[in-house]
Amino acid sequence: MKSIEAYREVFSEYLNSKISRKEPINLYDPMNYIMNLGGKRLRPTLTLVTADLFGGNHRHALDAALAVEIFHNFSLVHDDIMDDAPLRRGHATVHEKWDVNTAILSGDAMLILAYQLFESYEPETFQKLAKLFSKTAIEVCEGQQYDVDFENRDDVTIDEYLKMITYKTAVLLGASLKMGAIIAGASDREAQAIYDFGINLGIAFQIMDDYLDAFGDQASFGKQVGGDIIENKKTFLYLKTLEHLSPADAKQLTDLYSITPEDPEDKVRSVKELVVSSGAADLTQQAIEKYTNKALDILNSLERSEAEKTILKGFAHQLMRRTT
Amino acid sequence: MKSIEAYREVFSEYLNSKISRKEPINLYDPMNYIMNLGGKRLRPTLTLVTADLFGGNHRHALDAALAVEIFHNFSLVHDDIMDDAPLRRGHATVHEKWDVNTAILSGDAMLILAYQLFESYEPETFQKLAKLFSKTAIEVCEGQQYDVDFENRDDVTIDEYLKMITYKTAVLLGASLKMGAIIAGASDREAQAIYDFGINLGIAFQIMDDYLDAFGDQASFGKQVGGDIIENKKTFLYLKTLEHLSPADAKQLTDLYSITPEDPEDKVRSVKELVVSSGAADLTQQAIEKYTNKALDILNSLERSEAEKTILKGFAHQLMRRTT
Repeated sequence: MKSIEAYREVFSEYLNSKISRKEPINLYDPMNYIMNLGGKRLRPTLTLVTADLFGGNHRHALDAALAVEIFHNFSLVHDDIMDDAPLRRGHATVHEKWDVNTAILSGDAMLILAYQLFESYEPETFQKLAKLFSKTAIEVCEGQQYDVDFENRDDVTIDEYLKMITYKTAVLLGASLKMGAIIAGASDREAQAIYDFGINLGIAFQIMDDYLDAFGDQASFGKQVGGDIIENKKTFLYLKTLEHLSPADAKQLTDLYSITPEDPEDKVRSVKELVVSSGAADLTQQAIEKYTNKALDILNSLERSEAEKTILKGFAHQLMRRTT
Repeated sequence: MKSIEAYREVFSEYLNSKISRKEPINLYDPMNYIMNLGGKRLRPTLTLVTADLFGGNHRHALDAALAVEIFHNFSLVHDDIMDDAPLRRGHATVHEKWDVNTAILSGDAMLILAYQLFESYEPETFQKLAKLFSKTAIEVCEGQQYDVDFENRDDVTIDEYLKMITYKTAVLLGASLKMGAIIAGASDREAQAIYDFGINLGIAFQIMDDYLDAFGDQASFGKQVGGDIIENKKTFLYLKTLEHLSPADAKQLTDLYSITPEDPEDKVRSVKELVVSSGAADLTQQAIEKYTNKALDILNSLERSEAEKTILKGFAHQLMRRTT
């Protein structure tokens, strides 16, 4: 295969072939709805790429890829309830279009269906995949809980924040990549390496998301620029700033983070000034670069076909340079 | 082992040994809370009994038994949200004691933890247990959805109702029993037989629950007698009555089932009169007996140690005669 788009296309076709209307429709229609809302299909695409990278056949990785995508969408359905979010990818969320009970139950069923997709693999592979999947899934739950807990805490450290985003975001990226390696029969060392590639890339991606929320270009950034500041979200950027401010300036920042003015323009500007003057803006960019380079170094160290490595490198660059 | 109580005790000790306080506490405390509320531990106890029945060692079945009990409690946590139930076993439900979001997320994590418990088995057994577990779990979700759907339907058939209670209640009983058989290395035929024993017993139990809701003795029945009638619940008893009434009497019954008077005494008495006069009360008792006997016949046909069969027979009698 030549490109990440070609892999994505293979996955999309497989996904479409698997979607059918089933009874009870109030359980299965919401699943089909959320799965059909689109999205970039990043994770399952990566599973297919690494299956080929490690000498397997990406077609054998389709069920695992689908499991990963279903799990990701399960987490969106339940997270959207918890966040009381009305929209997902520009459409009504499941609990809005149906109701909260339907969203809970359909989400539960999606989690189970994800496990069922591993049943097509022989027992040894099945166990490896299901173990990795369970470990990842429980970490995603823990990450979500830490994220909720952090809202009510004033003493979150950068290390705690990094653990939270690792669990909430990066481990699923790592697991998606590692599943392809497992299916291809890669060595444990290689499977671990590609997992670590995903973890570092995932952390870099999340920190960049924090950065772009404040300094991104409104036209190319998907969400409202300044949204995290308006909502007083303790992101990497915020924690880094707090770490590098004088006590007086730190007080100013925490004060700004205790208010929610109707017109947030002044607040957003003041916070951003502190982020820049503290040096945190630069330090954050350096952190993004550090994690990205760590990911790319791991990838380079693998003694595997350059073709698939190039695809993953291209993916990493694409992911990290989306708006700059 | 000599008695069902002895097996229950072994399970309870194991459960207690496994409960510990973990971070993030807002994720794990609700789990420990619901797991500690007690309950009869029917399902996990049965897993241990069948492990011995089929020549295995019940201690090897402890992790599978715990998975079944965690899954059962997961379903209670999410069902209680959906039913807006304030109490469970006389204590505040998880979403009441914490909040709905916590109950959703902790429930999700419980479902994943249940799968993780199978990891202690070698790959072939792991796959068999996880497959059975997933099939069962998805059927429980489907059963729950059918139950919700039936509330808004006037044309539910007895067959549909039986399918619903089979999925919602009986399959988990069957799976609990079958897991012990799988772990003990029983033949597929025997594993299927003990599953069918559980299915039939589960159906008998659920129909008896419907019967006792109307005709039970208030002192020994756990819930309010007449509760299903007050809530217009389309139980086996109701559907059977409707099936055997003249059009005029059927009209009277459906009319009664369209009202919710402040003092329900007259309504409950009128409905019960129709249940008796239609012959449905007798027919329902016959159905309970039919399913119970089917279960016991299957158990008798097994060429296995009488000691454990006696325990299961005793369990069946205990379950079916709780209040008569």
